[in-house]
Amino acid sequence: MLFLWLSKALLNVGEVEKPADPDAKHIFPHTFLQILEYKSQNVSTADVFFPSSSFFFPSSDLLPAMDGDTKTMTFLQEVVDILLAYIVESFDRETKVIDFHYPNELLQMNNWELQDEPATLDDILISCRATLKYAIKTAHPRYFNQLSTGLDMVGLAADWLTSTANTNMFTYEVAPVFVLLEYVSLKKMREIIGWPDGRGDGIFSPGGAISNMYAMLLARFKMFPEVKEKGMSSVPRLVAFTSEHVFNSFSNQIGKMIPADLERRILEAKQKGFVPFFVSATAGTTVYGAFDPLIAISDICKKYNIWMHVDGAWGGSLLMSRRHRWKLDGVERANSVTWNPHKMMSVPLQCSALLVREEGLMQNCNQMHACYLFQQDKHYDLSYDTGDKALQCGRHVDIFKLWLMWRAKGTIGFEAQIDKCLELSEYLYNKIKDREGYEMVFDGKPQHTNVCFWYLPPGIRYMEDKEEKKKHLHKVAPVIKARMMEYGTTMVSYQPQGDKVNFFRMVISNPAATFQDIDFLIEEIERLGQDL
Amino acid sequence: MLFLWLSKALLNVGEVEKPADPDAKHIFPHTFLQILEYKSQNVSTADVFFPSSSFFFPSSDLLPAMDGDTKTMTFLQEVVDILLAYIVESFDRETKVIDFHYPNELLQMNNWELQDEPATLDDILISCRATLKYAIKTAHPRYFNQLSTGLDMVGLAADWLTSTANTNMFTYEVAPVFVLLEYVSLKKMREIIGWPDGRGDGIFSPGGAISNMYAMLLARFKMFPEVKEKGMSSVPRLVAFTSEHVFNSFSNQIGKMIPADLERRILEAKQKGFVPFFVSATAGTTVYGAFDPLIAISDICKKYNIWMHVDGAWGGSLLMSRRHRWKLDGVERANSVTWNPHKMMSVPLQCSALLVREEGLMQNCNQMHACYLFQQDKHYDLSYDTGDKALQCGRHVDIFKLWLMWRAKGTIGFEAQIDKCLELSEYLYNKIKDREGYEMVFDGKPQHTNVCFWYLPPGIRYMEDKEEKKKHLHKVAPVIKARMMEYGTTMVSYQPQGDKVNFFRMVISNPAATFQDIDFLIEEIERLGQDL
Repeated sequence: MLFLWLSKALLNVGEVEKPADPDAKHIFPHTFLQILEYKSQNVSTADVFFPSSSFFFPSSDLLPAMDGDTKTMTFLQEVVDILLAYIVESFDRETKVIDFHYPNELLQMNNWELQDEPATLDDILISCRATLKYAIKTAHPRYFNQLSTGLDMVGLAADWLTSTANTNMFTYEVAPVFVLLEYVSLKKMREIIGWPDGRGDGIFSPGGAISNMYAMLLARFKMFPEVKEKGMSSVPRLVAFTSEHVFNSFSNQIGKMIPADLERRILEAKQKGFVPFFVSATAGTTVYGAFDPLIAISDICKKYNIWMHVDGAWGGSLLMSRRHRWKLDGVERANSVTWNPHKMMSVPLQCSALLVREEGLMQNCNQMHACYLFQQDKHYDLSYDTGDKALQCGRHVDIFKLWLMWRAKGTIGFEAQIDKCLELSEYLYNKIKDREGYEMVFDGKPQHTNVCFWYLPPGIRYMEDKEEKKKHLHKVAPVIKARMMEYGTTMVSYQPQGDKVNFFRMVISNPAATFQDIDFLIEEIERLGQDL
Repeated sequence: MLFLWLSKALLNVGEVEKPADPDAKHIFPHTFLQILEYKSQNVSTADVFFPSSSFFFPSSDLLPAMDGDTKTMTFLQEVVDILLAYIVESFDRETKVIDFHYPNELLQMNNWELQDEPATLDDILISCRATLKYAIKTAHPRYFNQLSTGLDMVGLAADWLTSTANTNMFTYEVAPVFVLLEYVSLKKMREIIGWPDGRGDGIFSPGGAISNMYAMLLARFKMFPEVKEKGMSSVPRLVAFTSEHVFNSFSNQIGKMIPADLERRILEAKQKGFVPFFVSATAGTTVYGAFDPLIAISDICKKYNIWMHVDGAWGGSLLMSRRHRWKLDGVERANSVTWNPHKMMSVPLQCSALLVREEGLMQNCNQMHACYLFQQDKHYDLSYDTGDKALQCGRHVDIFKLWLMWRAKGTIGFEAQIDKCLELSEYLYNKIKDREGYEMVFDGKPQHTNVCFWYLPPGIRYMEDKEEKKKHLHKVAPVIKARMMEYGTTMVSYQPQGDKVNFFRMVISNPAATFQDIDFLIEEIERLGQDL
């Protein structure tokens, strides 16, 4: 790469290779420039395994100190070139979403074993290429498989910076800027929830399950502070409630919690001498995308003095949309809210926030007085040390991705992105709801981007025997999905639910997806399922 | 940057700016080349705020599709240039470890607020520079503040790749390569622990606290499987044991658990009708770096049928050193081991492994049968789906950093790195143990890289009144530390412990540190503390 040659010249370190030198290609063999050339020749960059070149020194020597600068910068730039090429490929609809291989096959396709001896940097670059070659292209506009899809360029840049800063969130001392950005962002999120002046508390955790667990710990501590020192045997039998819409008594047929049922269950538990302490209402269920009726639930929680948690891991982001936030009406009455920007807002994984209404509670609940971590005689305002607010001591910096993306898009940018995904999902719903060969899993327009449907291939479409039909239908989605992965054209999730046989669950959180990609998905399902 | 100009030409997208153009500097204003120039003029890159230039379009337009390629690649390359410059700076001993400001000050130094409107890409780049300007340089050879220090270049490259791949560890379906690499690496780690053929199970979790919690859940489930369905009220009162060397009855004066005391406590608990179910032995305590006697503890655990866990978050890495692994003799008798490569092995944060001896237990303990995630009729070997092995559903990819570094260094490279850090720590210990003005906090050579000591400035060195002396000494470390941060020359941790007043805890995990840096630390402590 030219600039590296130039910088080497500038630094006057060692011998200077001229770019005109016939060896130059070997020295910097995989520049972005060349990758573009390969790309235009329709060769996957991952196939381009260059012969070993100047990178024969063991990679363990790599330290960007003294005369190591150039060597290190060259290596990192090589990796970046590989990544940039991968990104361009990932967004290209002509590229496969996945180059699928079975686990045992994939284990044979490369030497993945760990060795005693160091590898050369060349080998490291080859490993990077091989890893990407067989990775899922989660940024691909036709990757719909999970709640987290897409790749935001500003978010990615922010994550690269986060890795480079390589620090820990537990104190202001070691993460001054990131701690402040977490403070600023949590406050903004609490304002959006609707808590007065954005007051309250919160933390970013490694994911929705951990955020929800932290909420339960707070609820338990709030009701029985002695649990912290005396343990579970010091408290009565506690009961938590949530809707799993497989339990029909608890949720209606579109997956929403039924408040009257909740109240009945609470009373039953109390009669048995148990203590209801926690209700987790769901804002956006995983499969149906259903929103529990928060206002009615909050009335019940208030009546029985129960902590109300809203699990908005998937649906919380709709709070940013003026058009859709009514689905979470009543969220401001919750004691705590889980909201994962790594799902609907397409922030790179991991990014999950727990927001808490009461100030001070997190600290009281989790403080361990580990004086080796949280010295009380430090020379700055200790309220910025966050390490005592949760179970974790070390905590990864997850805030910068969200913060930088928010700066880049503004609140209105996130809103537009979310609205667009919901529009695409409505387009899909409208397209298939009356289309021959399709059946919707639940009635009515989806509330989130989840569209759940069966595709019935012509062969089983008119079967008389209902049980026989069901048995066949159950096998359709898995086969179509397996074929999708083998062709690598698209990926969408399927599952059974209660007595419902396997159906497709389409979700859209990928900002790169378009109406044409939705059309493609339907055509592809029909192409791959036609003969079943 | 030249190559971008060329690639634009190659792609024939839009107008081509020639590098000779006087505006070229504005178009690609912060190339690595220029950063090197600024550096040589002793100007911090973070100070170089360029005027707004061609980046006036809102950053939300950034999508590397169609004609967005060049725009996106330019932006990402700009960020990379900022990061490369930061890396070079970070390893430079002439650079400050930190440009410290108090929280309220720092809040004023930049506009950190989140806005409704999008920012320009220029503003995003400025935010990146500002963030790095006030960040701690954790890679700096004189940053000794935490157990996790240093920045490995291959680890960093791997983390950049991980961000770019942006996927989730829960199934082979969405993370085929990473799941296999986790499988390969966990097996290798279990071999190193000494379990036959590396058999067993394990998972990477977001940190040591979570890994330890997962171990406790396994121990509880192993003894009382009904706890999963029936809750805590279905089991007797459980007791877990660990050494906190603040509890003197439990650990000796160098911080090691005393097996006879452990046994006495177990018997006491049993007499009260409680059920001891879990002993967590520590391999490398946080402050003293002490290693509990694992063989003796394992005998007791076996005798009373208690799950033996080894918390080797900090000390587990010594297993890779032929010279030091005897400190963990008996680890192979444990039921589970926590081992954080992000500490002593300098893998970028977060990277923590929980290794488990019994196969199948993790799945049985944590399986939720969430059929929407773990379909049982998928077309590949489902044993590679890891999502049911722990509480988390989504799980960040933490394996690639470790795996790629291991490839790059080989086991012998990690060994050499660890041995070197322990050598530096012995050097420090030998240097200060008899030096005037120093007192060691505990007797004998440190077992890990932890060196705990008091520095007594001349003014209090010969004080007669012991209580008065102690009172003064308590204030010394905080003041020296505050001065270190204000000068930005180095950072080292301090804390009180039990009845011991504030002392310095030096730890060395930074592969960039040298004997000279140890010398510097001592000189700096004396320079900053001389007048106290």
